Parts: sequence; structure tokens; C-alpha cells
Amino acid sequence: MSTLIVPQQVPSVADDCEQLRKAFAGWGTNEDLIISILGHRNATQRKQIRQTYAEMHGEDLLKALDKELTNDFESLVTVWVLDPAERDAFLANVATKKFTSTNQVLMEIACTRSSHELLLARQAYHARYKKSLEEDVAQHVTGDFCKLLFPLVCSYRYEGDEVNMSLAKSEAKIIRDKIEKKSYNDEELIRILATRSRAQINATLNQYKNEFGNDINKDLKTEPQDEFLALLRATVKCLTSPARYFAKVLRLAIERRGTDEGALTRVVATRAEVDMKMIKEEYQRRSSVHLERAIGKDTHGDYEKMLLALVGDESA
Amino acid sequence: MSTLIVPQQVPSVADDCEQLRKAFAGWGTNEDLIISILGHRNATQRKQIRQTYAEMHGEDLLKALDKELTNDFESLVTVWVLDPAERDAFLANVATKKFTSTNQVLMEIACTRSSHELLLARQAYHARYKKSLEEDVAQHVTGDFCKLLFPLVCSYRYEGDEVNMSLAKSEAKIIRDKIEKKSYNDEELIRILATRSRAQINATLNQYKNEFGNDINKDLKTEPQDEFLALLRATVKCLTSPARYFAKVLRLAIERRGTDEGALTRVVATRAEVDMKMIKEEYQRRSSVHLERAIGKDTHGDYEKMLLALVGDESA
Repeated sequence: MSTLIVPQQVPSVADDCEQLRKAFAGWGTNEDLIISILGHRNATQRKQIRQTYAEMHGEDLLKALDKELTNDFESLVTVWVLDPAERDAFLANVATKKFTSTNQVLMEIACTRSSHELLLARQAYHARYKKSLEEDVAQHVTGDFCKLLFPLVCSYRYEGDEVNMSLAKSEAKIIRDKIEKKSYNDEELIRILATRSRAQINATLNQYKNEFGNDINKDLKTEPQDEFLALLRATVKCLTSPARYFAKVLRLAIERRGTDEGALTRVVATRAEVDMKMIKEEYQRRSSVHLERAIGKDTHGDYEKMLLALVGDESA
Repeated sequence: MSTLIVPQQVPSVADDCEQLRKAFAGWGTNEDLIISILGHRNATQRKQIRQTYAEMHGEDLLKALDKELTNDFESLVTVWVLDPAERDAFLANVATKKFTSTNQVLMEIACTRSSHELLLARQAYHARYKKSLEEDVAQHVTGDFCKLLFPLVCSYRYEGDEVNMSLAKSEAKIIRDKIEKKSYNDEELIRILATRSRAQINATLNQYKNEFGNDINKDLKTEPQDEFLALLRATVKCLTSPARYFAKVLRLAIERRGTDEGALTRVVATRAEVDMKMIKEEYQRRSSVHLERAIGKDTHGDYEKMLLALVGDESA
């Protein structure tokens, strides 16, 4: 479901490093050359390029990119070059440092990665920041947001398909009860979303819909302006249909007045190799326009070219 | 710091399996032979024995032991034979199913294992119980106990030695403030204990003592009968001096009227290969009697022999 286009004949890692070095050399920078290489290599290949570049040229590729590139293009190339776990650690760290009640990045990382990927992100967080992700979340996030986000970032969910139907029924009732009382920050409600396996949560929410008539997220929309409720709805969405969640993030990032480049960069860089094909389908279904076209309309220059390369635009 | 005595010349795994098979054969069981093998093999060797036994005899060694052994001896041999992560998962599962306010096993596992060991236990929990440790804790443990135990079992602490002294100072003040207000279940207090690295917690608690005069655990002893406070004190102890904590568990298990075999078995089986030497020193320092002697006085038969083998009694 990746949209990344890797050429059938990939040059050797040493060749890629040599070409990148050339792209940086002299006056100006050859951005097209950078995109033609880094925009068309998978995570393993990029990791090898970064290692080999450091060995050949005695400099971290990220440092070199930082010197040569600017603005949104630089941000995109930089997070893209990072190893996925390191990238998640970086994005999570930024989110804890500048946490606001509308920032859903921590939840997004906690709920759309596999248990193992989330663990790798926590390990990368140790290595990079010399502390744990959860201590930063616990320290910087407060109130109901912390009550929900702390167990989410600490979770190591069971990933099997087994479903306990009687548990699904009883927990659907618990959820219904809390929603009726508008106890959206209730411990039981949070416990269920933060600890149950995705398969179990799906069964519980199907049961909820069968028994009580609505999608849970419809019932959670009573106060559309409430930011905690918005986070709760997004949590449900990330756990049950991540592609729909990401398509919506892209829509909001693109359709608002003035693009939200941060969100656009994050979603494209983190999902290109995961489920961008599905996200594109969802995007088109809801916006009646191809994502590539929307990106082309809203961005420009090297940033646009790199985005288009990553979402699999054949011409990029 | 292990007390396990592994012979210099260890028989082949196949020989060990053959001998075990002989020990089970015919009328009666040769317990001494079982102890002479399983009481003197390290975790890796026991794992190989279990694998090879299953291959050679088409039966899980644990099943065979279950058929042949009884009572406390059986419990000890069984948890000892389990892989450490699987053993932790097993002990934690029993603790969640029968959780009582005096049960400190979940805290003990969460606070005395390394971050990686705790993670392995969580993985073993998935494999064995088809669900996550944290969902069982969140579901079965309630109130303040859950408030403390949930983040403890979910923790993946940073394990570096780096210490932030200004943080240690500010958090020592926070802790002091909460203790003065008797807000023992306060979120900040729990956050600090549940998320900071051991090095950081040590610095904070040293700072606490320097600034406010007492060991934190002295100040937490205002209501000796309060079970949540007891768990909080034990948490501090497990994080800062696990050997002293375990020596005390052994003292309480042995010195009370009627031995607490559950605790004795658990501590000996989980610590023999870790820090039992230090635990024995602590035990003797506080009880003025050798642990071996105390075990010999309080237990008997094969259970006694196996315990003595694991705590490194030369004659066992």
C-alpha cells in the first residue's frame, strides 16, 4: 500500500552518496537530483545511504541537507530521511514540547503504529533525548489530555485477532453509559480505548452500533468545538480506520486558508511507505479530487516535487 | 550476584533430559535427581532442556513435572523452569486475577526488572494469555492502586546514568509538598515514581533527604496500616534498593507464624540468578541469621532442598 516508486535498477549505495555529494557541491544545490535519489528509495535503502554517506564524507547526511536546503522542502526531506522509529521519536518530542489541546500527533503515533513500531519509537526516544517518551508526556501534557494520552503512548497492545464477544457486549454498554452521562473523560472509557487490542475494540464498537444505533463517533460529536472530544473521536478513528483519519488530516491541511505544511509533511513522510494508497483513495472519495492534484494546486517548487514523488505521482 | 551453582562440567542437554525422564519413570519419583539437574542449570540451559525434552519425549517438561511433583516443591520447580519473561507473565497474571490491596507482585515485577525485561514479560503475556498485561491491570485493579500500578507496568524507563539536578530539586519539592498535604495518591507524585529513570529518582530522593531531613520512606510511614502507603513505600524501595526490598519480603515470609511459601518461592525463583547474593547479605544483616539456616528451619523435604540449591547452599 506504499506509494513510493523505487526504480527497478537501484544504483549502488556508494553511487547514491556520490550523486548526493555532487548535488550539494559548488554554488547552489541540485534539488532535482536530491529528489530523484531520496524520493525514490525505501527506508532500508535510505538508512544505508545515511550510514555510507557518513563513512564516505565524514558528515551526517542530515547535517549536509540542513546546510543545503531550506523551509518546507528541508523539513520534508529531513523527516523523510530519518529512520521511521527515529522520526516518530522526533515528531513526538516536538509535540510534547509544544503541546496544545489541538495537537493530535502523540495520539496519532500511539494509535496508528503497531505495538512493535511504537516500542521502537520509545527506544529511539531514549537514544535521542536521554529520557522516556512517557515522562515527557506525563510532565508536559495536563488534565484530561494527559489522562488519555499517557496510557496511549505507553500501550503495548495485543495484536491477535481473537475477540471476546461477551466482553465486547459488556464494554459497549459501559461506553454507552459514559456517553449518555457525557462522562467523556471517564476512566473506564479511556481504559477500553487505551488498552484493548484493535480487534477487540472493533468488535466492541460494532456491538455499540448494533445495539445503540449510531457510530460511536456520531454520538461523540455532541459538542463539536470541544477539543478533548475531538481528540477522543480521532483516537477512535486512528484505531479503527487510520487511512480515513489521515485522509481527513490531509483535507484539513490542504483545504484551509493557507496550507498547514506541518501536517502535510508529517502525513506524507510517515505514511508514504505504509498506507498512502488507501489514504489517496479515501482522499479522492471525500474530496472528489486526486490528492496529487490538490497538492499541486496548494504547494510549489521543490517541496511540491518531493511531496508528489512520495505520494507516487508518476511524473515526479 | 547469582547464587546458582552450575557444575563446571555440565552434561549434554540430551543427557539431562534422559536423566529427568528416568527420575519420572516407574513408581515414585526421584526428586533428588530432579534437584541435582534443574537446581543447577542456568536460564539458557533450562530453556534448552525444556525444548529438547519436548523433542525427545513429545511432552512439555512442565506437564511431566506437574504429573510427578506436588505442593510447594512442584510450584517452585515449575516457576523456576519457566523462562524468566514467561515466569513474570505468569506471576503477573495470577496477581491481576486475584488482586488484593496487599499484593505487591505487580509493582515488584514492574519496578525491579530492567526496561527490556519488563517488555519481554509484556510480550510473554501476549503470547500466553492472548491479551496485554496492562489491559488486565486496568480492568482488575481499581482506585488508587490502579492509578499507581497501571503506569508502573506500562513503563519503559530510560536507563542511562544522566541526571538532571535542577529537575531533581524541583521534583523533590513537589514530593515534599504532596507528602506534607498527605496527598499520597497525587498524580504528580505517581508520575515521578512511575516515569523517571532510576538514576533520576535516586537523585531526587537524595535531594529530598538533604533538603528535608528524612528518608522519603520514613515520611511515608505516617499511617503504617494504610495499604496504599505500604505499596508506595515498597515502590520506592524496589526502585532504589531492590535487594533490601526482597530481603524484607523473605523475612516477612519466613518470620511470620506459618511460612508464606508463595512469597518464598517467588523471591527465590526470580532472584536466584539476579541478585540473591546481595539479598542474602541484606537478610543476614537485618536478621542476624543466614538465609540458608532460616530456610532450613522453616521448610522441609524436597522443597527445602530445592530452595537451598537455588540460594547457593554448598551442601544442596
